[in-house]
Amino acid sequence: MPKTITITGAAGQIGYQLAFRIASGQLLGTETKVNLKLLEISQALGALKGVAMELEDCAFASLGSITITDDPNIAFGDSDFAFLVGAKPRGPGMERSDLLIENAQIFSIQGKAINKNANKNIKVLVVGNPANTNALIASENAPDINPSSFTAMMRLDHNRAIAQIAKETGVHSSLIKKVAIWGNHSTTQYPDINNAFVDSKRATYILDKDWIRNSFIPRVQKRGAEIIEARGLSSAASAASAAIDHMKDWELGSSVNDWVSMAVPSDGSYGISQGIIFSYPITCKDGQYSIVQDLNLNKFSEESIKTSEQELLDEREAIKHLL
Amino acid sequence: MPKTITITGAAGQIGYQLAFRIASGQLLGTETKVNLKLLEISQALGALKGVAMELEDCAFASLGSITITDDPNIAFGDSDFAFLVGAKPRGPGMERSDLLIENAQIFSIQGKAINKNANKNIKVLVVGNPANTNALIASENAPDINPSSFTAMMRLDHNRAIAQIAKETGVHSSLIKKVAIWGNHSTTQYPDINNAFVDSKRATYILDKDWIRNSFIPRVQKRGAEIIEARGLSSAASAASAAIDHMKDWELGSSVNDWVSMAVPSDGSYGISQGIIFSYPITCKDGQYSIVQDLNLNKFSEESIKTSEQELLDEREAIKHLL
Repeated sequence: MPKTITITGAAGQIGYQLAFRIASGQLLGTETKVNLKLLEISQALGALKGVAMELEDCAFASLGSITITDDPNIAFGDSDFAFLVGAKPRGPGMERSDLLIENAQIFSIQGKAINKNANKNIKVLVVGNPANTNALIASENAPDINPSSFTAMMRLDHNRAIAQIAKETGVHSSLIKKVAIWGNHSTTQYPDINNAFVDSKRATYILDKDWIRNSFIPRVQKRGAEIIEARGLSSAASAASAAIDHMKDWELGSSVNDWVSMAVPSDGSYGISQGIIFSYPITCKDGQYSIVQDLNLNKFSEESIKTSEQELLDEREAIKHLL
Repeated sequence: MPKTITITGAAGQIGYQLAFRIASGQLLGTETKVNLKLLEISQALGALKGVAMELEDCAFASLGSITITDDPNIAFGDSDFAFLVGAKPRGPGMERSDLLIENAQIFSIQGKAINKNANKNIKVLVVGNPANTNALIASENAPDINPSSFTAMMRLDHNRAIAQIAKETGVHSSLIKKVAIWGNHSTTQYPDINNAFVDSKRATYILDKDWIRNSFIPRVQKRGAEIIEARGLSSAASAASAAIDHMKDWELGSSVNDWVSMAVPSDGSYGISQGIIFSYPITCKDGQYSIVQDLNLNKFSEESIKTSEQELLDEREAIKHLL
């Protein structure tokens, strides 16, 4: 059975990476045909046509049809997996509240289009910032879709945390397990290695506490800015890669004896307010995710998590009139 | 055994696609670790650092070390596979002969560095234009490396030809076999479907002769310009995808009952002057390529192939003093 995959902002930098990696079979395997539905704003349809032409020119074995459109109702038609990448970036002189509201409008339209047109079992990943609150808005505008279908991307932060530990310890990233990112995809996020293992040893036994608090945590929180400084452009390839990791693990299962970080609607776990799209340590199996339960949180972790929760509550408050 | 993979021009648009797809395991499979050596001109080392940071941030299981450098001797150290992507583009007011000579200088330096530092069984793919003559120059400057190690990319043209036939017939690209591109990676290339099959039927029985000559051939020859017009940028993701297809098939074998197009040093097959880097229909097995022999060429094919051969002879003449 072919699967329908929607990508919004598909002519942008992240979309340009994502579409080709998905079409080449890296999301669902080369045996599953994928039909791509690519959404852009009207002004970018010309560039999007170029992307579609290049996708054709790859002659990918697992790529079925390609649809390009500026109409969300078409883009989300029968969609099984949606990557909501396109968002309005923060412009000069724009307040954070303006950013929240402008994006709230985009994601409420897309939520309505998902509700009306998508497969009822759709899996939605919001990448466009402010991702967590954008996911909340999309979900609230899609009353016929289970809220658990709406998630936001923390996997880039998760992978960045692993990469920093790999760099510090000299251990390959594939041997670093059970890192977690809690909270909001913003600088208030809390990268937590209290339960992590580095080549089967407890991370907290190996890594210096001062390094964790004063180097590791702020570096992961601010890695996006560091990339912009080096590249002159924001993270695109690594964001696309993390988006594939997120959706692939959700659909096909996460690794045994490890977990991933995903922002999902809070069910109240760890005392977090219900409903906000909050990042937890997560395991995935049979197409479903579960929040890892019963972790002991020390005082520092609790406080850090509360700070990020408060930011998400403030964001919800700022766009409440649109919910 | 980890493999060392060199990419030149690695901070450019094609390099930015290529590095991540290779690091994710799409060249040699996820079980083979790859060490990336990324080369850029000095002015682009800052951006290249950003690329390396993003590669780290992907936490790819199959990525070993990352080296960034502006020194070809470092970039080609122990290289098993080299993608020569970086090249000087044609600037305003620049004659084609200037372009040939400026690139000849770049590729002679790289050829020397390959000769001195690379694995003697290196596989080299030149992507940067004028690709065929650049490959010739690199090879001539690497006397200790078998000339058969130096190839130029025609796979993008090959895939584009398949895509056009798929579009015209409505048959999926995976069912279109034995397309060939002959000659130079330029508008003189000859896309040949006289031996091709479309869903097991001869392409020449299905496709209109007028369409082949007046639509198909010129469209494939000029597809690059069509993409630039749509995107405002030259083909990057599709070029990177074709580069992976080329190298992967060379190393791991091409599909049974099909062939690919690769520009390789002519051994005189089909009466083509020996030594120029000429595209033929090719099969690959056990890490070696072979030119498909004994095809009947009609008069139109022979003339088209001769035109492209002449262009390559002229290119060689223009840079002969550097060989």
